[in-house]
Amino acid sequence: MAGAQPGKIMERPLGERLALLTDLYQLTMAACYFDQGMADEATFSLFIRQYPAHRGYFVAAGLAEALEYLETLSFTEDDLAYLESTGLFKPPFLDYLKQLRFTGEVHALPEGSLFFKDEPILEVSAPILEAQLAETFIINAVGLQTLIASKAARSVYAAQGRPLVDFSLRRTQGSDAGLKVARASYLAGFLGTSNVLAGKLYGLPIFGTMAHSFISSFAQEIEAFRVFSRVFPGSTTLLIDTYDNIAGARNAIQVAREMEARGHRLQSVRLDSGDMAAISREVRQLLDEAGLASVRILASGGFDEAKIARTLAAWGRIDSFAVGTRMGVSADAPYFDIAYKLVKYDGRPVLKLSTGKVTLVGKKQIFRHYDEQGKMQRDVIALRGEAVPGDEPLLRPVMRQGRIIPPQPSLKDSRDYFQAQFARLPEPYKTLIEPRLYPVALSPGLRQLQAEVEDKMRQGELGES
Amino acid sequence: MAGAQPGKIMERPLGERLALLTDLYQLTMAACYFDQGMADEATFSLFIRQYPAHRGYFVAAGLAEALEYLETLSFTEDDLAYLESTGLFKPPFLDYLKQLRFTGEVHALPEGSLFFKDEPILEVSAPILEAQLAETFIINAVGLQTLIASKAARSVYAAQGRPLVDFSLRRTQGSDAGLKVARASYLAGFLGTSNVLAGKLYGLPIFGTMAHSFISSFAQEIEAFRVFSRVFPGSTTLLIDTYDNIAGARNAIQVAREMEARGHRLQSVRLDSGDMAAISREVRQLLDEAGLASVRILASGGFDEAKIARTLAAWGRIDSFAVGTRMGVSADAPYFDIAYKLVKYDGRPVLKLSTGKVTLVGKKQIFRHYDEQGKMQRDVIALRGEAVPGDEPLLRPVMRQGRIIPPQPSLKDSRDYFQAQFARLPEPYKTLIEPRLYPVALSPGLRQLQAEVEDKMRQGELGES
Repeated sequence: MAGAQPGKIMERPLGERLALLTDLYQLTMAACYFDQGMADEATFSLFIRQYPAHRGYFVAAGLAEALEYLETLSFTEDDLAYLESTGLFKPPFLDYLKQLRFTGEVHALPEGSLFFKDEPILEVSAPILEAQLAETFIINAVGLQTLIASKAARSVYAAQGRPLVDFSLRRTQGSDAGLKVARASYLAGFLGTSNVLAGKLYGLPIFGTMAHSFISSFAQEIEAFRVFSRVFPGSTTLLIDTYDNIAGARNAIQVAREMEARGHRLQSVRLDSGDMAAISREVRQLLDEAGLASVRILASGGFDEAKIARTLAAWGRIDSFAVGTRMGVSADAPYFDIAYKLVKYDGRPVLKLSTGKVTLVGKKQIFRHYDEQGKMQRDVIALRGEAVPGDEPLLRPVMRQGRIIPPQPSLKDSRDYFQAQFARLPEPYKTLIEPRLYPVALSPGLRQLQAEVEDKMRQGELGES
Repeated sequence: MAGAQPGKIMERPLGERLALLTDLYQLTMAACYFDQGMADEATFSLFIRQYPAHRGYFVAAGLAEALEYLETLSFTEDDLAYLESTGLFKPPFLDYLKQLRFTGEVHALPEGSLFFKDEPILEVSAPILEAQLAETFIINAVGLQTLIASKAARSVYAAQGRPLVDFSLRRTQGSDAGLKVARASYLAGFLGTSNVLAGKLYGLPIFGTMAHSFISSFAQEIEAFRVFSRVFPGSTTLLIDTYDNIAGARNAIQVAREMEARGHRLQSVRLDSGDMAAISREVRQLLDEAGLASVRILASGGFDEAKIARTLAAWGRIDSFAVGTRMGVSADAPYFDIAYKLVKYDGRPVLKLSTGKVTLVGKKQIFRHYDEQGKMQRDVIALRGEAVPGDEPLLRPVMRQGRIIPPQPSLKDSRDYFQAQFARLPEPYKTLIEPRLYPVALSPGLRQLQAEVEDKMRQGELGES
């Protein structure tokens, strides 16, 4: 329905607008590194520590945004004036920030990749000040899109081939989330979105129907239907539940006949309340009896993977779903325990030992093993240089010396990649309730290094022997 | 810590950047209204249909953003070119959009108001096309800030006077949410935020400490502490849990003594993992024994109102809390059932009858009754012209003919207003678990009109008698 013109709403590149969209501690730590002349290479690893209830996989998304941010990261004069006004920072450090650019490298999973807990989604290697500074934005951007893509993938799975459209914009957590939810749900297999700006920015198909207020603004429901069908004869979806679904369906049938007389066809009717399975069967029967088998039934109203599955299991005759709030905020799991941790500094693998939170040290690679039918069988997290013969390495270099390595996949490429990947994940790992835990092992090299570093940390810092 | 320079990151006003941040159906309905020449006044009411579990009040927030959007709403050439490219809209309608501005009026609760389910947060009256078009953004903007302010107020209540700081930016749902969470939590009584851009945009106090990676980048924890305390001698908070809280506390005590020798004082230590109540008591004792009674204990890591209350109930010796993810996404209730419904069109009160979702018709006012001690006793939702003698009307005119009515309160004013309001809400309505339901009645006038309209709708549309 629409061509993409990415980035057109924003006059400045992402990193220049958002350099201050960070936690103050990133800047105070940076001032310390600057003061100490600490510029050795640090590697940070981004990963999710655990699965929310009933989740067994994640879908990587948000990489393109993180890379754009890194490539264009810079502080404006206005930013620096604000930092100076806080009284926290000295002029030499502010001068340093003025010319700061990200100069490091990034290895990452392509968007649309399936991955599992503890596996690195991306690893950033750069002078420690630069790599640290990017923490807040990278967690936020990759975290949100990965959260939504992972939720949306479950809805797509539940719908068993029926098209889904994102209707969540009004209740997403803010406008940025509204855009990213449209993008991430498309990546995970949604057909499109109601979000016009997302359509423009990302080149997504956009869809819309009508609101109850539209119906109410006419004296009679059928008048509202008639007007809409005349203004949009090629794409009419009629909302039939404003007063009563069945009476609304009869009005829609009447209008469908009037449209046919003018050489047009009613595309669909939309249900938005009540017992969707029962109502959809009744409406389907009315439409079929009226010779309107081609009119499709769209349902909206509180759908996510659970309600989609329930409605279809109750023999709902629904052709497509508008999926809104619960997907758009990932209502059952509104955040992931995602972290960006220092794993190597100045050639030295590092970790923290805080209770219950362990980080895998060093630069890493994920290797994936497939069975003879091409289905995913297990992953191994290894050191980046380590060889795991026969298995597929998943992390790829995507940025070098601060520049994105071309070509990067289009959103459509990433969507296709996800679908191909998801088809290779065996069913037991996909089920919506208590999925089987996908096996992820540590390589011998990583296990050994991890043990060595833990021992050394305990001895060195805690005086244990 | 910092002066406000609101709006400086964005080169264009909100409404001009975000005119397309809407659902497609707003534009298809607008095209129908345009086609039919329907320009009569419509009134839409924004309200929340029900309480999430354990919630008994809401805190109004986000009004300033909604008003800025309305005052500056306009479509750019670029927006119109995109809409044309979809093939959905005809040139006369696109020409109309080109000159469209919002010309209506808004009545609203001031930001920081306490309100309850079914009560209008705001009512928009304008030609139906304009009032409808604004639906998506208004729900999104007011919905998010109200969601967060309502959650943050509970954390403030649980902390019993201890200062709270917003640390949620990395896991908010996107960058816009990151900014709005900082603003809304400040409005609800937080002391400030870690979010530097929010500090700049909204003039909030900003706070920061250090990350585990900072500690790990030095060979010894105490070296990291020493460097930080030398670079920021006036505002040093040391994170002590990277290896072990108690060993970390001993290092912090050592550094505090070194700071004292240089004429400075350690401000605080930060706990981030483990059994916070127990650890804080141990750390408090160590600090006190070292003569460092003035060093405060800040705790972070998974705090929201529930964990704050639990930790204090277990005699945790914590002076302030950094509140992150669970507040920043309102984890227990990540969305409200918030709706923007047509309640009057062309002089005619309207509603929809869909199962389980009833709208209060007409232009309304909320009246609040206080007892002799000045405590809130009950609310009455009335028709806007109706008199409820002795009670305080809450909705105020805030926009007329598309222009914001000055003066609007500053964020600090709204914060003060919330605190004054909250002090007047009796304790049983504030408790964190199963609060008492605040009484909200409908006025005689509203009850009568509602019944009349429902009867008329049923007769007119459904043929019931």
